[in-house]
Amino acid sequence: MSSTFGTLFKISTFGESHGKAVGAIVDGCPANIELSEADIQPQLTRRRPGQSDMTTPRDEADRVTILSGTENGKTLGTPIGLLVNNKDQRPGDYGEMSQVPRPSHADFTYQMKYGNRASSGGGRSSARETIGRVAAGTIAEKILAERFGTQITAWVSSVGEIDARDLTGENLTREQIDSNIIRCPDEAAAKKMIELVAATRDRKDSVGGVLTCVAKNIPIGLGEPIFDKFEAKLAQAMLSIPATKGFEIGSGFAGARMFGSTHNDPFVQKDGRLGTATNHSGGVQGGITNGEPVVFRVAFKPPATIGMAQQTATFGGEAAVLEAKGRHDPCVVPRAIPIVETMAALVLMDFVLRQAYRTV
Amino acid sequence: MSSTFGTLFKISTFGESHGKAVGAIVDGCPANIELSEADIQPQLTRRRPGQSDMTTPRDEADRVTILSGTENGKTLGTPIGLLVNNKDQRPGDYGEMSQVPRPSHADFTYQMKYGNRASSGGGRSSARETIGRVAAGTIAEKILAERFGTQITAWVSSVGEIDARDLTGENLTREQIDSNIIRCPDEAAAKKMIELVAATRDRKDSVGGVLTCVAKNIPIGLGEPIFDKFEAKLAQAMLSIPATKGFEIGSGFAGARMFGSTHNDPFVQKDGRLGTATNHSGGVQGGITNGEPVVFRVAFKPPATIGMAQQTATFGGEAAVLEAKGRHDPCVVPRAIPIVETMAALVLMDFVLRQAYRTV
Amino acid sequence: MSSTFGTLFKISTFGESHGKAVGAIVDGCPANIELSEADIQPQLTRRRPGQSDMTTPRDEADRVTILSGTENGKTLGTPIGLLVNNKDQRPGDYGEMSQVPRPSHADFTYQMKYGNRASSGGGRSSARETIGRVAAGTIAEKILAERFGTQITAWVSSVGEIDARDLTGENLTREQIDSNIIRCPDEAAAKKMIELVAATRDRKDSVGGVLTCVAKNIPIGLGEPIFDKFEAKLAQAMLSIPATKGFEIGSGFAGARMFGSTHNDPFVQKDGRLGTATNHSGGVQGGITNGEPVVFRVAFKPPATIGMAQQTATFGGEAAVLEAKGRHDPCVVPRAIPIVETMAALVLMDFVLRQAYRTV
Amino acid sequence: MSSTFGTLFKISTFGESHGKAVGAIVDGCPANIELSEADIQPQLTRRRPGQSDMTTPRDEADRVTILSGTENGKTLGTPIGLLVNNKDQRPGDYGEMSQVPRPSHADFTYQMKYGNRASSGGGRSSARETIGRVAAGTIAEKILAERFGTQITAWVSSVGEIDARDLTGENLTREQIDSNIIRCPDEAAAKKMIELVAATRDRKDSVGGVLTCVAKNIPIGLGEPIFDKFEAKLAQAMLSIPATKGFEIGSGFAGARMFGSTHNDPFVQKDGRLGTATNHSGGVQGGITNGEPVVFRVAFKPPATIGMAQQTATFGGEAAVLEAKGRHDPCVVPRAIPIVETMAALVLMDFVLRQAYRTV
Repeated sequence: MSSTFGTLFKISTFGESHGKAVGAIVDGCPANIELSEADIQPQLTRRRPGQSDMTTPRDEADRVTILSGTENGKTLGTPIGLLVNNKDQRPGDYGEMSQVPRPSHADFTYQMKYGNRASSGGGRSSARETIGRVAAGTIAEKILAERFGTQITAWVSSVGEIDARDLTGENLTREQIDSNIIRCPDEAAAKKMIELVAATRDRKDSVGGVLTCVAKNIPIGLGEPIFDKFEAKLAQAMLSIPATKGFEIGSGFAGARMFGSTHNDPFVQKDGRLGTATNHSGGVQGGITNGEPVVFRVAFKPPATIGMAQQTATFGGEAAVLEAKGRHDPCVVPRAIPIVETMAALVLMDFVLRQAYRTV
Repeated sequence: MSSTFGTLFKISTFGESHGKAVGAIVDGCPANIELSEADIQPQLTRRRPGQSDMTTPRDEADRVTILSGTENGKTLGTPIGLLVNNKDQRPGDYGEMSQVPRPSHADFTYQMKYGNRASSGGGRSSARETIGRVAAGTIAEKILAERFGTQITAWVSSVGEIDARDLTGENLTREQIDSNIIRCPDEAAAKKMIELVAATRDRKDSVGGVLTCVAKNIPIGLGEPIFDKFEAKLAQAMLSIPATKGFEIGSGFAGARMFGSTHNDPFVQKDGRLGTATNHSGGVQGGITNGEPVVFRVAFKPPATIGMAQQTATFGGEAAVLEAKGRHDPCVVPRAIPIVETMAALVLMDFVLRQAYRTV
Repeated sequence: MSSTFGTLFKISTFGESHGKAVGAIVDGCPANIELSEADIQPQLTRRRPGQSDMTTPRDEADRVTILSGTENGKTLGTPIGLLVNNKDQRPGDYGEMSQVPRPSHADFTYQMKYGNRASSGGGRSSARETIGRVAAGTIAEKILAERFGTQITAWVSSVGEIDARDLTGENLTREQIDSNIIRCPDEAAAKKMIELVAATRDRKDSVGGVLTCVAKNIPIGLGEPIFDKFEAKLAQAMLSIPATKGFEIGSGFAGARMFGSTHNDPFVQKDGRLGTATNHSGGVQGGITNGEPVVFRVAFKPPATIGMAQQTATFGGEAAVLEAKGRHDPCVVPRAIPIVETMAALVLMDFVLRQAYRTV
Repeated sequence: MSSTFGTLFKISTFGESHGKAVGAIVDGCPANIELSEADIQPQLTRRRPGQSDMTTPRDEADRVTILSGTENGKTLGTPIGLLVNNKDQRPGDYGEMSQVPRPSHADFTYQMKYGNRASSGGGRSSARETIGRVAAGTIAEKILAERFGTQITAWVSSVGEIDARDLTGENLTREQIDSNIIRCPDEAAAKKMIELVAATRDRKDSVGGVLTCVAKNIPIGLGEPIFDKFEAKLAQAMLSIPATKGFEIGSGFAGARMFGSTHNDPFVQKDGRLGTATNHSGGVQGGITNGEPVVFRVAFKPPATIGMAQQTATFGGEAAVLEAKGRHDPCVVPRAIPIVETMAALVLMDFVLRQAYRTV
């Protein structure tokens, strides 16, 4: 398993869904940053289950404790230990699934790879694993905001076949996005999405969706070609989130249908520096940020665990019908928003540190 | 710059487009693999310019030399040095662009990041940089084919608005794909694509496209959750290729529009092992390969360098019109095929080695 | 800060001396290893303070909790979280030292590097930091013992000017070594060492010493030339332990005084394999283990924190006399034994996993 | 094999002793450094064989070519490819050794690890492998000298039982050190050493020795505790050099015999900053440089390949007498000087870049 991410701003996460605790260590955080649990909690709270009847009612306060790395409210430059205890463990709910691997879940592949797996709750493949990342990423968010005014904002741009209208995200705040439970700032679309998710939940099914994320006020020059291009590490970060199936930056797949004469972003003078008139590039050129907003989208498949009966097979290969017990998110995209935002912050922060040495 | 990729099967590339040479070192290749230049050359030849009037007529033989790491035709387990000399250097062609950064190219960002850049040909941001990767990746391809029968096959599935029909790639060979110059196995679509590229070239414009890639005969258990999930490292690898804007695996963005009851891949007994009846997962579940074919798509934007006049600005911010000299690919997707295939092989090979230790 | 060690068997440690907790995450441990706190505790107990009047009387039970990575007493292949809470925090004892950096301690360099430091107890520069390593290293020790019968045994070979007689360590057990409080198996020397440490402590001074360590039953072929030669990573591991000043393997510095004709280890047939008649090489040739015992020595300086008055200067450069409060080990070598042994185990285990892929 | 070193200033070396070429890629070198082959050649020339009858008469000009990474005499920030062709290949000389592994050489361990090995000259285990490091390290030396005035100077402090008198190295220049062929600045000792090496060579034996190295004008704050302490990575670097058996920093093994009251380095105001009155620490405290000179010593064993008859065994375990053909250094320490210096420079440069981000 490879639970470490980052070259200089490095996080290592741990914890099974139904074990004692989940958490992370952040190594490489600069010293003298003001930091307390209060800086970390909000994104954990946005991520936690039970926020609405859209989401799994598992009741976890998800309170974070800083175990190390700070003193008198400031970072020491040493590893920051972050711990969230697990409260709500319901191993019984999953007992039935031990012989029948959930279709499109990680039960089968973990068992084949490790010859063992957590008996309940998905272990490390559970979305609960993301708590460590979110906690760590809030520290990156805080530093980026303080040093560069960086703002990272994600929202739900589609659920199933329902698309929100195109938004630049220019003036969107997290408060606006959180004003409805599906976290889509197009109110008309949001209403339909909420109805779709409710209907999907009622028939014990699940549905996918897409997030759009915009990061503004990004220093020019971030990203390390060749293999650690900005968009390459961002793609890795996003595809490391459970249930993701696609990533695109700027024009993305639509850009593949365009001509260069239309797609190219002409340079113009703006705000006292060279900028671009359009942003099909999504804020990166040649793997390096150009100062324009970084814009990207992430596709989430419908959650694999559904209550509806599914015809499948046991580990032994015998036909079986599975009706998953327990309560599961019918749609993960609203809760995925803080995960996408904080993973983007981790990518940005690591590149900020990797770029710093140019000044030597 | 970060020109190294891989944890155990590690490649490091070097070389500017118009410098003395390009190449790579492969460190971590197992010993006792039969290897000569003849194993490496075919994919380099598929990648090289001047293959048709679709592609830039720059004339480079692109002959590879193995500098180290083999003796008597077998690998020693030591670093394999791979060298391709540059023959065709035309610095003059690019002189005009030194004051005017090409829109959507890396001229501006390299200059801002490094305070310097190769005066001609794009330096490391040129597609010529990929020669080192392709040369290194052919070694991975060879080992995977010999040990597991792995076959990796990519083809052009769209150019501009022209889509090939859906293909599983089940029985497609590289020979079939190379049977037309656009490398699209749907002959009707291929004809239209070729016409589109010709027309685009004639008006000095460029056009984007999408590649689909299928890798068959993949061992179960490859991929290292959490952050090095199989699809996460594959996404990084693909987004590290010049001109890419998007990546999707299995159902991808289309999967985000589906319900779980339809999207889930039911388990069935097949070929004496547990497989899945459908493959919306694209061969991975929970970040680990499940033995089904790995299927993914990569979006390429239209090349940034076009001969058509573009209204833009100089580095100093003054309005300028740029008409790029030199000859450039109007569409990169046919030549991108060996790049995508060999990068996929590098990801696979590294995970094979990382998985090997489970057997200790 | 770089608190991660290992390529495949990777540990990340955290925690300040007088913070809430110290601990480690172990990522890359194979699945299906039987593991409980009882396997880890013995080396922590050997390391902990207050074992005799040789050592600091700080009272810490140092009880470890496994937070994650196991279920039903077996490893899952996922990160193993290890936590030891700090009980005995005496920040007051160190208050005086805040203006006067301790000579030869890390107070000055941490303050200069980070612009901040733990106000008490040395923070991460404290020997308490080693708890995470020792806990993690016991897991490596257990796997190595089970798979290969590997035994790693360190003892005190000198304290100040008192040298134990030469020992091969061939049949030494940890029980024998622990039979006296200085942990030197030469009883006559041990008695003198104990007297020396007592006298040193009584005059509020400290004294250095040397450990010798032997690791037997080592697989042939461990170590990754060029830069990760076996002895190179072992040297890094040892010099990463607080208070170390030197490392030598096999003949070491004495070997630099010899002729090749005497120093070379002739090959002989033994135990059905090719071995060597002598072991000046210390078990490694060309950076790779040869199957003979790995033998090395580590030099520890006298602890920097002493109660005796020292003429020095404040951070501001003014002359000052420092008499360190608190109770400190007059000699660290007995407690360093489990640290050296477990760090050696971490190096060995990582190389075992890195070597495994040769079998692909 | 692991032929890459460094986190941000990263080198990857390649090449067998008797293959086509040896060399290195340097990735992470800052842009806009003036650099040409003339900056690199001097240390390669100091390292090369055939400089005196002290050293192997193998005739290699060892001329380096920069393949990439510079333009108009300045670095681009891209990977710097460095190539040295092999001229003098004498595979025949080694034929006899193919059945009889050289005692204390890497023949046996390479064969066991890789199941293959270079048929002649030791392949990667040859000292010729160090050419890539030396070439790369000269670039680090140049940057350090220009930015910080850093001077790194090593000399021979013992050969066999002959010790030079203690020297601080304060005002020693490379020119002074090179003024005699053994490179020992104590002329009286040098004379005896030269006689000893000559006598040793005449009886076809070899002899070991020790290098002392001093690095002055070092920025405060370099080194990344915990595992990448300055002295830990320096120890790794030194023990990665062929034929090394020991490393000590500052007081080293002698410090283990001292009391804290004598060993501690009191702080004093000097040159407008806080320095230390003595330097038993060798320039590091808590794994971080303190601004005092970094002082360390490296032990080299006598070369394993000797012409004198040795009683040993074949790979198959049968008794054999080996008289090595070819011409080999009877003592490597004079030629090891540029290797030690440039490896130290690589460690320093990497830590400079890793420290730079503190300023973000």
